[in-house]
Amino acid sequence: MIRLGIMGHGNLGRGVEAAVKHNPDMQLVAIFTRRDVESVKPLTPGVKVYKAEDAAKHADEIDVLILCGGSATDLPVQTPEYIKYFNVVDSFDTHANIPVHFDNVDKAGKKSGKLGLISCGWDPGMFSLARVYGEAILPGASTYTFWGKGVSQGHSDAIRRIEGVADARQYTVPVPSALEAVRSGSTPVLSTREKHTRECYVVAKEGADKAKIEKEIKEMPNYFADYETIVHFVSEEEVSKMQQKLSHGGFVIRSGNTTDENGHILELSLKLDSNPEFTGSVLTAYGRAVARLAKEGKTGVVTVFDIPIKYLSPISEEDLRKNLL
Amino acid sequence: MIRLGIMGHGNLGRGVEAAVKHNPDMQLVAIFTRRDVESVKPLTPGVKVYKAEDAAKHADEIDVLILCGGSATDLPVQTPEYIKYFNVVDSFDTHANIPVHFDNVDKAGKKSGKLGLISCGWDPGMFSLARVYGEAILPGASTYTFWGKGVSQGHSDAIRRIEGVADARQYTVPVPSALEAVRSGSTPVLSTREKHTRECYVVAKEGADKAKIEKEIKEMPNYFADYETIVHFVSEEEVSKMQQKLSHGGFVIRSGNTTDENGHILELSLKLDSNPEFTGSVLTAYGRAVARLAKEGKTGVVTVFDIPIKYLSPISEEDLRKNLL
Repeated sequence: MIRLGIMGHGNLGRGVEAAVKHNPDMQLVAIFTRRDVESVKPLTPGVKVYKAEDAAKHADEIDVLILCGGSATDLPVQTPEYIKYFNVVDSFDTHANIPVHFDNVDKAGKKSGKLGLISCGWDPGMFSLARVYGEAILPGASTYTFWGKGVSQGHSDAIRRIEGVADARQYTVPVPSALEAVRSGSTPVLSTREKHTRECYVVAKEGADKAKIEKEIKEMPNYFADYETIVHFVSEEEVSKMQQKLSHGGFVIRSGNTTDENGHILELSLKLDSNPEFTGSVLTAYGRAVARLAKEGKTGVVTVFDIPIKYLSPISEEDLRKNLL
Repeated sequence: MIRLGIMGHGNLGRGVEAAVKHNPDMQLVAIFTRRDVESVKPLTPGVKVYKAEDAAKHADEIDVLILCGGSATDLPVQTPEYIKYFNVVDSFDTHANIPVHFDNVDKAGKKSGKLGLISCGWDPGMFSLARVYGEAILPGASTYTFWGKGVSQGHSDAIRRIEGVADARQYTVPVPSALEAVRSGSTPVLSTREKHTRECYVVAKEGADKAKIEKEIKEMPNYFADYETIVHFVSEEEVSKMQQKLSHGGFVIRSGNTTDENGHILELSLKLDSNPEFTGSVLTAYGRAVARLAKEGKTGVVTVFDIPIKYLSPISEEDLRKNLL
C-alpha cells in the first residue's frame, strides 16, 4: 500500500483526493493546509488534516507527498522545501522557469536522499510526452500544441495575485482557422499568438485602478505577454455563474512526411470535464511511480521523460505485456 | 553515430531505410536479405547488401539490427537467432504469442549479452503506451482500440502463406456506429467483432480450392477467427490497382469518470499515408533507445513499457526539459 499525503486542499488537492479513491493500492494518509485546519473538509472518511508547518513531523507516515499549490509563488518554494522530508510530486507549469526549478529540486533531493517529480500533469506532462514522441518518430516534421477551450487555473491564479483584483477566470481558446489548417495536414508556421487567444474575466476590488490591472495582466511575462489577451471586467456574480465545472482540453498534433509521397498525422487530444480532477489523477498515477523509484534508491529530481510507463501502472509487468501490449 | 543494419528489405525494411535519412545521428551500414543480393536496390548510396546467412560476420560493424520480417513465421525464429550476435528491434505483432516470444528473446539475449526490443511499432507500440497510460491515469474507465481503415500487412502476409493463394490484401475497417458511440463519451461494451470488420481481397492460384482458402482464412486463430471476416476473390490486376499506398491509421480512446459529475476522454489518433514507412520510423527511433540502453549494459529483452521516452530522442535531456516539457 502506497501512503500519500496532499499539501494544499484547493481544487487540485481535492482532485488528487478523488483520484486516490480509484486506486486500491493507494491510501490517503494526511492533508496539510495553510488554512485553518477545522475549515478543511476531506472527502475521505478518517483522513487526518494537519497544519502545513507541521508537515515534517509526519514524514515517516507518508511515502509520497503530492504538492497541490500554484506555480507562480507556491511551488518554487514548496518543492525544494518539502523534498527535505518527503518524496514529492508537483505540477509546476511555468515553462520558462522549469530548468531553474529542476536544479533547485535536484540539489535538495540529492542532499536529503528523497526523490521529486516536477512538472507533472497533462501539460506539462502527457502533452510533453506526446511532443517528444512526435519529434523522435517524425524528425523534421512540425508539432502544434493547442489548449482549450478551458479555464487555465495557473493563469487565473496569476491574475488573482495582482493588486486590486478580487477574483478572475481565464479562458484559453484555440483560434479555429489555425486549428483547421493544422488538422488538414498542412504545416503552417504559427506563432503562439496566432494559435490562441487568452480571455480574462476579472472582478476588480472597489476603487481599484482597472487600467493598471489590465496593463499588468497583458504585460505579465510567461503568462500573458506573448498572447493575444482580452480583459473583461465583470461582477463577482458573473464570474461565479460562468462555469461551475473547470472543464478544459487540448491537443498535440505532429504532422510531417517520411518520404516525398507519404505524410502522417499523430494527434493526442483530451476532453476534460474537470481540469483539476484530471490533473489530480495524473499526479496520483505518477505518485505511484515516484514511490517505486524512490524504493529502488533513486534520489534528486525526475520529469515524465525519465520514467518508463510501467512504473505508472499497478498491473504486473507480465500482465501489461499479456493484456495491453 | 549509431550504426544500423536492416534484416529484410521488403516494405518495412524500405520504411526503416527512409527513416534513417531523417536521423543525422544514425547511419545505415548494411542490408541483409534472403533474396538474391543483386536484386536488392538500396535507397541509400553506398550501403552494402549481404546475404542473411552471412549476417553474423558483420556483427562488429553494427550497433543495432532492425528485423523487418513478418510475425507469422519470420520473427519467432529470427529475433532469438540474431540476438546471439546483435542488439535487435522487432515489430512482432501476434498479440497472443507475445509472452512466449518475450521469454525466448530474453533467454537468448541474457546469454549473448545483447539487448532486444520486441513488439515495437504503432500497435503494438505507441498504442500500447496509450492503453497503459489510460489505464493508469483513469482507473476503472474503458479503453477502446480501433484500427483502420487500412491494410494490415501482417494479416495480408498471413493470407499469402495459405496454400493456393497468389496474392492478398487485407483491410481492417472500424464499424462506424461503434466508433460514434465511443467518441460521444458513452462507454458501451463492445466485442472485437462489434468494433471491426476484416475485408480480405484474395487472388487464388489457378485451380486452387477457393472454398478451402476462405475457410482457412476465417478460422485462422489470432488473425481472423475473432472477427467478422469477409473474403472477396479478385484478379491480380484488381489487387494491384486497389492501393499503391499502404495507408492505415486508428485510435485508442480512454473514456471514464473521476467523480460522478466529471468525465474525461483521452484519444490518440494516427492518420498514416504509409503504414510501413511510419512503422519503420518508430523502429528507427527505438533503435536509438536500444543502442543507448545496450551501451549502459542492459541485456535480454525489453518492450516499449520499459523505456523512458528520453532515450528515443537525439535531443539532450537539458534541451528536452527546456523546449519540450
